[in-house]
Amino acid sequence: MDFQVDMIRQAQERIGSYIVETPLIRAHNLDSFLGCHVYLKPECMQVTGAFKIRGAMNSMLALSGDELSCGVVTASSGNHGRAIAYAAKMLGTKAVVVMPNTAPQAKVEAIRQLGAEVVLCETSERFKIAAELSEQKHMTLVPPFDDINVMAGQGTVGLEIMEQCAGLTHILVPLSGGGLLSGVSAAVKAVSPGTKVYGAEPAELPRYTESLKAGKPATVPQKKTIADALVSQTPGKLCFPVIQQNADGILDVNDEYILKGQKLLLMEGKLLAEPSSCIGIGAVLEGLISFAHDDNVCFIITGGKVGFEQIERLKDVKF
Amino acid sequence: MDFQVDMIRQAQERIGSYIVETPLIRAHNLDSFLGCHVYLKPECMQVTGAFKIRGAMNSMLALSGDELSCGVVTASSGNHGRAIAYAAKMLGTKAVVVMPNTAPQAKVEAIRQLGAEVVLCETSERFKIAAELSEQKHMTLVPPFDDINVMAGQGTVGLEIMEQCAGLTHILVPLSGGGLLSGVSAAVKAVSPGTKVYGAEPAELPRYTESLKAGKPATVPQKKTIADALVSQTPGKLCFPVIQQNADGILDVNDEYILKGQKLLLMEGKLLAEPSSCIGIGAVLEGLISFAHDDNVCFIITGGKVGFEQIERLKDVKF
Repeated sequence: MDFQVDMIRQAQERIGSYIVETPLIRAHNLDSFLGCHVYLKPECMQVTGAFKIRGAMNSMLALSGDELSCGVVTASSGNHGRAIAYAAKMLGTKAVVVMPNTAPQAKVEAIRQLGAEVVLCETSERFKIAAELSEQKHMTLVPPFDDINVMAGQGTVGLEIMEQCAGLTHILVPLSGGGLLSGVSAAVKAVSPGTKVYGAEPAELPRYTESLKAGKPATVPQKKTIADALVSQTPGKLCFPVIQQNADGILDVNDEYILKGQKLLLMEGKLLAEPSSCIGIGAVLEGLISFAHDDNVCFIITGGKVGFEQIERLKDVKF
Repeated sequence: MDFQVDMIRQAQERIGSYIVETPLIRAHNLDSFLGCHVYLKPECMQVTGAFKIRGAMNSMLALSGDELSCGVVTASSGNHGRAIAYAAKMLGTKAVVVMPNTAPQAKVEAIRQLGAEVVLCETSERFKIAAELSEQKHMTLVPPFDDINVMAGQGTVGLEIMEQCAGLTHILVPLSGGGLLSGVSAAVKAVSPGTKVYGAEPAELPRYTESLKAGKPATVPQKKTIADALVSQTPGKLCFPVIQQNADGILDVNDEYILKGQKLLLMEGKLLAEPSSCIGIGAVLEGLISFAHDDNVCFIITGGKVGFEQIERLKDVKF
């Protein structure tokens, strides 16, 4: 199925009553640090604390009545898993979240508290087990990014931003498998072809830079990054061509600058977000992109899942 | 001069191009903690990092051309001093900020960097010296709260909130001398008499509770509070009758709960604000006020001046 902006518009209609329209914040106090007029889209203030609810909810609302009543299964233990559990609760159906047995107890509890069943297994087995459960129990598998309905749901962030401020010149989007960037770039280019859309991925995991070079999805070696929500080794097969067509470039950002971005956003922008969310700001601080001083640049702040100990680690970070 | 909502409307017109309209954020993730539908007005994201620019700018724009070119003087070393320095810079005039010689070097530097002249003196002398300078140099004295134009400027927060969400049932306002609460309560009652407006002041400095009991401005003993922007010992003489007429009640909040409010706002609301800004949230956590679960309650988050060491002190705070 071709990915069309109409699917994003339809998603916007469908999920509207289940999510909040996060504001577009004119963050005047960041202008001098980033060399442009700064706008923030704080999806860290979204229901469940991340944009992931948009795609999860859209996928589940696209199911037939029968499919929905059988429930859904996913293998993500992060923001997507939480979003699926929450969406299932809102829609009165079952969710099974397959998590590695190394997952922190707090994460397991948070998902259980939303009423989802948690299945613990070896990390390497989780996708296989989710697929098996899906088949055995006739539960629909909702992947975290490589799914047309998930991409359409995430794309609603892009439509919303352009409705809130039509004059944006640039949008910087945190990038992992590509669910958010594919949706946002398709949405933005459909309504404002002149607005530039960039993805920002960890320099340790340059899966999109490598894939675009190769002209097809490539896999990069697993490495650690502080951006722990952006760890896909390979682009989504459905996301890749959409991004290839619509994105204006990919920025590969080092961990050091991701943390600088997080601290700048906290201390001057007054927003608390997880490191992954701050990668676009990090890209600017690293000098990977720059702007005219009157460019209107929007940074999508994807999620806010941060423990206090992670904040404490920012102590000696300078921006 | 009587204080009228028209003065607030006029202020809104006047200062519009110098400030940002901060968003009204629907903070869904705080609902379960505060027992209502939570809205945040993040003036910590305002130009200069606090709402104070509204009153400072309105006062200065109300001056005649001659008065403006002679410059202004103030004795506040906090957010108001910074706002005055910024406004003077924007309007191309001089500002003198009288500060105690115990003020941290960083504060002195921040105000100097905005181009203001800083006069250091004994803490107890600062108001006297500001008044003397005003007279000697023909510079207009702009007090931090007890001034009709300052009150009207701060009141624009109230007009803005009601334009952004007409259905608010309650608004909680941090309270010190009363500049913000007088302006906001007058504005809100003029456009929506049914919306309840409460002030929240530190329990250590219950100047409004005591004054309302006495029926006239009373002075309370100086005590320390974590809410270091809310340390007036006595209500403003002009603010008091406006608050007496318009506010629905005053909440006296203990420091322990102010800090709980700050940590809750940071970790779950994803906003960084100074302790004083979090006093309304603290009031709810302390049980001083409660709501029906579908009440729409707005908390004005007045400023974001927080050093990293203050964040670290939240480590063991539970909410």
